[in-house]
Amino acid sequence: MNFSSKLLENAVNEFASLPGIGQKTALRLVLHLLNQPQADVEKFSHTLLQLRNEIRFCETCHNISDQKVCEICSAVKRDKSLICIVEDTRDVMAIENTGQYHGVYHVLGGLISPMDGVGPSDLNIESLINRIDNSGANEVILALSATMEGDTTIFYLYKKLKDKNIQISAIARGIAFGGELEYVDEITLGRSIATRIPYENTLAR
Amino acid sequence: MNFSSKLLENAVNEFASLPGIGQKTALRLVLHLLNQPQADVEKFSHTLLQLRNEIRFCETCHNISDQKVCEICSAVKRDKSLICIVEDTRDVMAIENTGQYHGVYHVLGGLISPMDGVGPSDLNIESLINRIDNSGANEVILALSATMEGDTTIFYLYKKLKDKNIQISAIARGIAFGGELEYVDEITLGRSIATRIPYENTLAR
Ligand SMILES: [Zn+2]
Ligand SMILES: [Zn+2]
Repeated sequence: MNFSSKLLENAVNEFASLPGIGQKTALRLVLHLLNQPQADVEKFSHTLLQLRNEIRFCETCHNISDQKVCEICSAVKRDKSLICIVEDTRDVMAIENTGQYHGVYHVLGGLISPMDGVGPSDLNIESLINRIDNSGANEVILALSATMEGDTTIFYLYKKLKDKNIQISAIARGIAFGGELEYVDEITLGRSIATRIPYENTLAR
Repeated sequence: MNFSSKLLENAVNEFASLPGIGQKTALRLVLHLLNQPQADVEKFSHTLLQLRNEIRFCETCHNISDQKVCEICSAVKRDKSLICIVEDTRDVMAIENTGQYHGVYHVLGGLISPMDGVGPSDLNIESLINRIDNSGANEVILALSATMEGDTTIFYLYKKLKDKNIQISAIARGIAFGGELEYVDEITLGRSIATRIPYENTLAR
């Protein structure tokens, strides 16, 4: 792109460095901000800085939090003996949105990915082991993505946890509700057949 | 969305206020920034502030510029007697990318849109008239979008300029190169027939 201004070019490059934002979209966003009142752009800019500089992570579950211990971990109503292990805060939000879960979480902060140079020590795994050893956890639910990285991480965690006196569950994977069989991808379909469960069990849910 | 942190929620709301960015995308962008080094986020934030606070517009053509007069307006090589009238800086960039144009520009800063409360006085029209009156302009090219607002603005400008001793052109509208006739929308197709030109003229280009 031929920019008529270095300031404009710099701002477009910053936006274009974000995932999924190309140069054209970045330019559209920057021109939008240029049209906003100066105070609004200052607020935008300040909010980002504040987030990055003041953000904290819950000491217990590592979810993003404004307090030392997050609301979920400190809620009396939540079942502390049930820990759902997830990749990041988006997964916590997604599961919270279902309204179906009343245990607590443990946010790994990523998945094991040798390709991307992410090993177990880069994730919040040691604190998970300590937490399980030192709290009255009865069950962990491995709620990780159905990807190569998710599977690798699940397998690693399973090896680490299998000798502890704790139940290890994984979220059910299969055909989404409303999903028509013919449109399901082969891997999902293959797995959902391989991991088939007695019909009575589906009724019991 | 149930945010676990107010700082996170604020940042997501700022991004979600940008055009075409929904809450899910905003969350993805914010989590990406949270994973970047603090210095990178500071640079992002500072670049936006600097753009908004220091940006200038060319005194002659109103294009975004770091100088009082932009590079195009001050280039000796550009034909100052030919002024291309466009909506915003994106149009200047698009036309510059063609490498086909060697005149100068006039950036209106928008289009007349009664629906959005944008009238002629909100645009850089007065300065256009002054510019034409006081410079040796021979021709203006109306290069505005093929929309209702574009047409309204073209008609308004035509009325303002028609009694001046200057040629008024409009960019050709029609079927894009490579466009198959059957996939062209009816309005474009209809217009391209109504505004058909002698075949010899197309050869001459
Ligand atoms: Zn927590
Ligand atoms: Zn200029």
